[in-house]
Amino acid sequence: MKITAMIGSLREQSYNLQLASTIQERYRSRFELLMADIRSLPLFNQDEEEDAPQAVRLLRSAIKEADGVMLITPEYNWSVPGVLKNALDWLSRVERVMTGKPVLIAGASTSHMGTIRAQLHLRQILAGMRAEVLPPAGNEILIQSAAAKFDPHAGRLTDETMLQHLDGVIGRFVEFVQASR
Amino acid sequence: MKITAMIGSLREQSYNLQLASTIQERYRSRFELLMADIRSLPLFNQDEEEDAPQAVRLLRSAIKEADGVMLITPEYNWSVPGVLKNALDWLSRVERVMTGKPVLIAGASTSHMGTIRAQLHLRQILAGMRAEVLPPAGNEILIQSAAAKFDPHAGRLTDETMLQHLDGVIGRFVEFVQASR
Amino acid sequence: MKITAMIGSLREQSYNLQLASTIQERYRSRFELLMADIRSLPLFNQDEEEDAPQAVRLLRSAIKEADGVMLITPEYNWSVPGVLKNALDWLSRVERVMTGKPVLIAGASTSHMGTIRAQLHLRQILAGMRAEVLPPAGNEILIQSAAAKFDPHAGRLTDETMLQHLDGVIGRFVEFVQASR
Amino acid sequence: MKITAMIGSLREQSYNLQLASTIQERYRSRFELLMADIRSLPLFNQDEEEDAPQAVRLLRSAIKEADGVMLITPEYNWSVPGVLKNALDWLSRVERVMTGKPVLIAGASTSHMGTIRAQLHLRQILAGMRAEVLPPAGNEILIQSAAAKFDPHAGRLTDETMLQHLDGVIGRFVEFVQASR
Repeated sequence: MKITAMIGSLREQSYNLQLASTIQERYRSRFELLMADIRSLPLFNQDEEEDAPQAVRLLRSAIKEADGVMLITPEYNWSVPGVLKNALDWLSRVERVMTGKPVLIAGASTSHMGTIRAQLHLRQILAGMRAEVLPPAGNEILIQSAAAKFDPHAGRLTDETMLQHLDGVIGRFVEFVQASR
Repeated sequence: MKITAMIGSLREQSYNLQLASTIQERYRSRFELLMADIRSLPLFNQDEEEDAPQAVRLLRSAIKEADGVMLITPEYNWSVPGVLKNALDWLSRVERVMTGKPVLIAGASTSHMGTIRAQLHLRQILAGMRAEVLPPAGNEILIQSAAAKFDPHAGRLTDETMLQHLDGVIGRFVEFVQASR
Repeated sequence: MKITAMIGSLREQSYNLQLASTIQERYRSRFELLMADIRSLPLFNQDEEEDAPQAVRLLRSAIKEADGVMLITPEYNWSVPGVLKNALDWLSRVERVMTGKPVLIAGASTSHMGTIRAQLHLRQILAGMRAEVLPPAGNEILIQSAAAKFDPHAGRLTDETMLQHLDGVIGRFVEFVQASR
Repeated sequence: MKITAMIGSLREQSYNLQLASTIQERYRSRFELLMADIRSLPLFNQDEEEDAPQAVRLLRSAIKEADGVMLITPEYNWSVPGVLKNALDWLSRVERVMTGKPVLIAGASTSHMGTIRAQLHLRQILAGMRAEVLPPAGNEILIQSAAAKFDPHAGRLTDETMLQHLDGVIGRFVEFVQASR
């Protein structure tokens, strides 16, 4: 199984990138997790969508070939980071490669609210794009107070309670991807 | 009075750009409307926020000097375009120049739903940024079926009913800006 | 196939009730549509949920026996009517009869915005209740300017364009219900 | 100063009622907090709005005479309880007594997410009703893990960190009410 991840933060030390790396390692026997390059994308311009820049074409291919997609993102200003929304805007046009694609949403935050508002917006966006999002109830990955749950040296999620929750959600997502094939 | 506009679409023939131009001309005796350059911004990266690229510094200055801000935007995938959210993400950090700034939201769309979902998200984003948004009830500018309401040659909004509604809302926004000074 | 409808308005001349009646008649060869009684419910009180009043028990049974549920509702104050939310609150407790239940959302309004904000809230509510809502893209039933689309004497939706759209969505909902059995 | 509170839960041991009682006592030198009776309201019916039942007329008066309103509510199914929305629906019609009224939103929850989704919906509802809600950034009262923060015998909020946060928000709300008079 091949899963493509898009990370909403471009920070080098991003907790969301560390969460993606944790998932990549911890479940590598179940799927291969590829990190999509969304930082090379230009800002979306409808005038260019037909003859799209190479970074867009590469991202389209990466999504097309994936069995599922993970969107792992912080919350900026109570919503989805522009960086991630820009990638989704490109993916929603011409070849609509997100249509019917199984999607998992996850987020880590240093605050005690844990990206919940961003995830609400993201679910509405993905409904508009006709993606197949794992139903949220029981499957939300909302990592609050991230500074206490990640090991800064290893750059990995280490909180045991959260890892166990993650195991359950990832297991259900793998089944969800298999059922959609 | 100086107002800065940010347009959520980079399309050359964008109805939202045409709406901004209509506002610029029609109310030029009341305020000067400057179009901010948001297409030159790089994708937001928190690692670069302190020593920000020049396009970011220019945008910060443009907002700082403005008495009010207009966000004129289409809806992409039931939400705010990534292009516009990316600009807001830059503006929300370091110098938080949107804090307390009077804001008007407007949108045009060829669909019959007229960008309402994007505006709901945008209001939540702006609440998170502590901007002062004109209260929406009675002040929504939601131009549906844009193809019938704009003159393609002039590149201007020409629908009389909508222009009259616009007159009322712009009048209330001007008072709102004056009251906030 | 048995479908249970809940109507968000208690008005006698409610367009949403007329929409339900239209659906009941027009598709009676495909399913039986029963109107649930939500006006007899008391206001939700968690202290009474275990030993619930009879109106609650009857509603639970009606939902339990249904193959699918239709929520046909106006928008009150940019959200779901309290009347309908109160019914959903009762249904979300003790026996959680909405869990996994296929749901269709529809709404009629005299305004030109057509209940879109209510439907956004309703989808989030139903996600929290683990209901299975028909994916919205392409399946939204948002009847705007209802006064021009309903025949006041017959008390039925008569707008041909909207009826054709309804045919498509109802067809997809019937398949969605069948697939979930 | 007279403030009227509406509580979204009818439970006798409701944490939200306990929060209201805490506010009533702790700030009694600054304002009188009256608990509105919303449990006696019938379900909203537009056919009855002109000649409204007595419980509705009493609630309208209570709000009309208040300098400000507090909505203190749990989250049911990721949104506002039907009980509270039903009260707001009555208040939004005929005499629109919430128009321009200063409003504070607060909520307590045993979960670790603390009613944030309900508050997002509530802010949209109140925007539609043209109420004047205290801007949320920095003023959110979201009490998570309530079981650990309330004293069950006293029936009061006792968590010191949260009480200090409350002091700040209530102080700003009192100024907000004074400024609006």
